[in-house]
Amino acid sequence: MSDENSKKTMSEAHNTHHAKKRRARRDASGTHRKTVRRKVERESADELYLYGLHTVRAALNNIRRTKIALHATKNGLTRLQDGIAIDFAVPVYEKMPGELDRMVGSDAVHQGVVLHTEPLPRKNIAELDDTDLVLVLDQVTDPHNVGAIMRSAVALNAGAIITTSRYSPAEGGVLAKSASGALDLIDHIEVRNLSETLLELDKSGFTTLGLDSEEAIPMEELSAQKKIALVLGAEGKGLRQKTRETCNHLVRLDMPGAIKSLNVSNAAALALYLSRSNLDQNT
Amino acid sequence: MSDENSKKTMSEAHNTHHAKKRRARRDASGTHRKTVRRKVERESADELYLYGLHTVRAALNNIRRTKIALHATKNGLTRLQDGIAIDFAVPVYEKMPGELDRMVGSDAVHQGVVLHTEPLPRKNIAELDDTDLVLVLDQVTDPHNVGAIMRSAVALNAGAIITTSRYSPAEGGVLAKSASGALDLIDHIEVRNLSETLLELDKSGFTTLGLDSEEAIPMEELSAQKKIALVLGAEGKGLRQKTRETCNHLVRLDMPGAIKSLNVSNAAALALYLSRSNLDQNT
Repeated sequence: MSDENSKKTMSEAHNTHHAKKRRARRDASGTHRKTVRRKVERESADELYLYGLHTVRAALNNIRRTKIALHATKNGLTRLQDGIAIDFAVPVYEKMPGELDRMVGSDAVHQGVVLHTEPLPRKNIAELDDTDLVLVLDQVTDPHNVGAIMRSAVALNAGAIITTSRYSPAEGGVLAKSASGALDLIDHIEVRNLSETLLELDKSGFTTLGLDSEEAIPMEELSAQKKIALVLGAEGKGLRQKTRETCNHLVRLDMPGAIKSLNVSNAAALALYLSRSNLDQNT
Repeated sequence: MSDENSKKTMSEAHNTHHAKKRRARRDASGTHRKTVRRKVERESADELYLYGLHTVRAALNNIRRTKIALHATKNGLTRLQDGIAIDFAVPVYEKMPGELDRMVGSDAVHQGVVLHTEPLPRKNIAELDDTDLVLVLDQVTDPHNVGAIMRSAVALNAGAIITTSRYSPAEGGVLAKSASGALDLIDHIEVRNLSETLLELDKSGFTTLGLDSEEAIPMEELSAQKKIALVLGAEGKGLRQKTRETCNHLVRLDMPGAIKSLNVSNAAALALYLSRSNLDQNT
């Protein structure tokens, strides 16, 4: 520890190693910057496979989504239509369960239905519908977490999820399955510059609320608001400095126990709930 | 659809296929019944590798945990001790990052520290400490979800997590990492019969609250309680019939949006928060 040079070298070697692993993971999850950029550029050419009953049902019923084909087992097809009207303006191919396994991987709980589809077109901020609650993600990309967050956002009636285009979660089977249909029930808006977007939201009447477990003000103490834009950072990293500086308020979720921060999707669920409760005070 | 026999055969083939996949997944995640039983029987012989700074720090400081060895990079060891006293009554081996990758898999974000350890001894219900809030899991086994749930349980000051011994989540690296240290900060109680345990909890003053998204009573409408045992079922399956029948009350989380149920760990976080708020009305 007294030898600063050797310590630095150790740390550099360590960082390089971890940087490599981070790159490898990003590449594997398809959220690497270059991958995402390429996706955005040739979005209409991209295709993906969604699976699971809730997910496929919501995707089929989404008029904004371009569907290519539905692959389903006889049983899957029956369960898909169980008591619910489905728009079947898409070719349907009957498959054996094993064939679906080979399409989406044998780990995927496809429940007998796989939808071959184009990704949803992302909206831009000018297309934000009239809403009193939006969720802003500052570089949260883990597909399990983002999927669960989308599900909670729909459950708590948020009008949109806003992400940056450079670190946007890639639409894929894992995210869609974790979202349990929410992917097709909420607008996903991509912006280039998050700070500028927060300023725009502020101008259009939103209170921009950054969540940070080390902040002094518990979220419950916030006075009643008319519109809330809730801003969450990635697990570990938290909000970027520029994002923190731009938010109207920084608040924390008040935890009485020995651990002071929640998993990002759990924090999102609770913060969305508290935002909804805050907004309800006006009605 | 008119031919009941062929439909049944189709359904059976489908179920067999899915049953096989479920078994394969259970085996892979180490939560299969036989695996768990074997683990419990020869618990002292079992060993596992925990990784990540929060997780390893909490494990080292847990006097109930039997540690075998700490494997760490120079940098990992420095970061592990950053401002925090650690009980190092365990042999420490300096390793290169790549060596740690090989121990826990290159997907694991070990942050330069891997602890070789025995699993924690599970407690029985007679050992439940004095607490006003416990979380009961009815066959929730997914390690990512259970890890996040443990973290939220510690954050909201629950005194224990109670699971059945047959469908208990297996202690492992993924669960521990998702728990972010919570694994070593909360008692894990295993019981044979969940319904009997709920009756015992009821006798010792707990209101047993089953969570079900289709129940009529929103959780917020529950009158102030002195002690709460919150009961959650697995994603999709929900609470078992016997569990539902034994709970004092069945309540739902009130969701205003198009999706009515949350991911199980998100639901747990929100329900724990509302339980804590309910209990706080008494103080």
